[in-house]
Amino acid sequence: MSLQNIRVVLVNTSHAGNIGGAARAMKNMGLSRLVLVDPEDFPSSDAVARASGATDILDAAQVVTTLEDALVGCTLVLGTSARDRRIPWPLLDPRECATASLEQAQQGGEVALVFGREYAGLTNEELQRCQFHVHIPSSPDFSSLNLAAAVQVLTYELRMAWLAAQGKPTKMEKLEATAMLDTQPVTMDELEHYFGHLEQTLIEIGFLDPAKPRHLMPRLRRLYGRSGISKLEMNILRGILTETQKAARGEPHKRRQE
Amino acid sequence: MSLQNIRVVLVNTSHAGNIGGAARAMKNMGLSRLVLVDPEDFPSSDAVARASGATDILDAAQVVTTLEDALVGCTLVLGTSARDRRIPWPLLDPRECATASLEQAQQGGEVALVFGREYAGLTNEELQRCQFHVHIPSSPDFSSLNLAAAVQVLTYELRMAWLAAQGKPTKMEKLEATAMLDTQPVTMDELEHYFGHLEQTLIEIGFLDPAKPRHLMPRLRRLYGRSGISKLEMNILRGILTETQKAARGEPHKRRQE
Repeated sequence: MSLQNIRVVLVNTSHAGNIGGAARAMKNMGLSRLVLVDPEDFPSSDAVARASGATDILDAAQVVTTLEDALVGCTLVLGTSARDRRIPWPLLDPRECATASLEQAQQGGEVALVFGREYAGLTNEELQRCQFHVHIPSSPDFSSLNLAAAVQVLTYELRMAWLAAQGKPTKMEKLEATAMLDTQPVTMDELEHYFGHLEQTLIEIGFLDPAKPRHLMPRLRRLYGRSGISKLEMNILRGILTETQKAARGEPHKRRQE
Repeated sequence: MSLQNIRVVLVNTSHAGNIGGAARAMKNMGLSRLVLVDPEDFPSSDAVARASGATDILDAAQVVTTLEDALVGCTLVLGTSARDRRIPWPLLDPRECATASLEQAQQGGEVALVFGREYAGLTNEELQRCQFHVHIPSSPDFSSLNLAAAVQVLTYELRMAWLAAQGKPTKMEKLEATAMLDTQPVTMDELEHYFGHLEQTLIEIGFLDPAKPRHLMPRLRRLYGRSGISKLEMNILRGILTETQKAARGEPHKRRQE
């Protein structure tokens, strides 16, 4: 069942009750994988009380120290965002988020829905690790939803999309039919390695000044993040960077040697 | 504004925290009229705490003793129901509930969304006072949502329907219109110039052998073609190629010269 490929990631949650409320909402909607990044208070009796029977999800919750750890293996990461950002980012509403997540999960990918702190949300750095931002429409003068309520809205839309998709041929079956081997998506950690390699290369060729980085890397993250890169395409991009570094260092390359 | 014609009715609520959570969800979604039928504990500091700023809705809440009192003036009443009923009743999902409610409200009618007790829901007698029942889809083996979460789902669907009916720009569309200057898309000829520049650069760094090009350029065309590149992003990508060529040719670059 494809909903099992979708994990809920709560970053640096203050109130354990919200973790319990999120677990209950997830179980109501048929999700089960909860990852907690550096929670302030967990395990907690408040979480158990608000989970109201969804303690199996709390018991199985994975607790990690960084967002990066929470995203290992993911092929699609969506982060909830309440605020306008200086660098515009691909922005989805909850319904679009559900469609994109389910499609990815049905292709065998791993999806993370990332929720920030109760009062401060996700940091800009955390948001830049997300390929898409998700905004829950709300009243402009009172826009901040309770954390568990936000989890409820996004998981509700996932269940609606999942119910609608039942019985229909999935995209995965269509893909298998055409045997598109190179559409196997990269994982988030592979993408992170690429961004590290890209940044290093841009510094070496003198395009990126570490003292004045401006918004170059976030913009490149946004571009490649939304492009849905396959493993084969990633190999090509990494190969280009490696040859660029050799050229910048004046090292010979295979073809020049011939 | 038609959302003002839609009231939320909570029947015989046990936990005041849920009343606060419901008030917050309502205010987030642009609703304001809360009616409490025989609440067990109200007013309450728990309600204020969970309302998290939506105290105006709590202060204005109408407290009545019977469901009948709560429905005075209503032209459409919808009751949430978790269970299958012995007498089949017209049953809507939350999206259909939102459409029907908004249509009624826009015609000047008064709509009530009725939510039952935390553990027992609405009685059969109460449900029979509702023209429609609303069921929030949920996992068959864990189907009972938290009360405030149920209010969140139904009011969220109301806001989505209201935004769609406004034809008003959603927050997303506003972002696109104003801040997203750098999402102005490149033209096909600019993209062609880029592919020419890219191919030339890949030859110079020795990654592409013109005698054995294989499928490298088609794959890169496919990747960048589907990425929906903006003019600003294109400038960045062209800049990277220019600096790569300089590096490959051993020419100094600006930052190295400094």
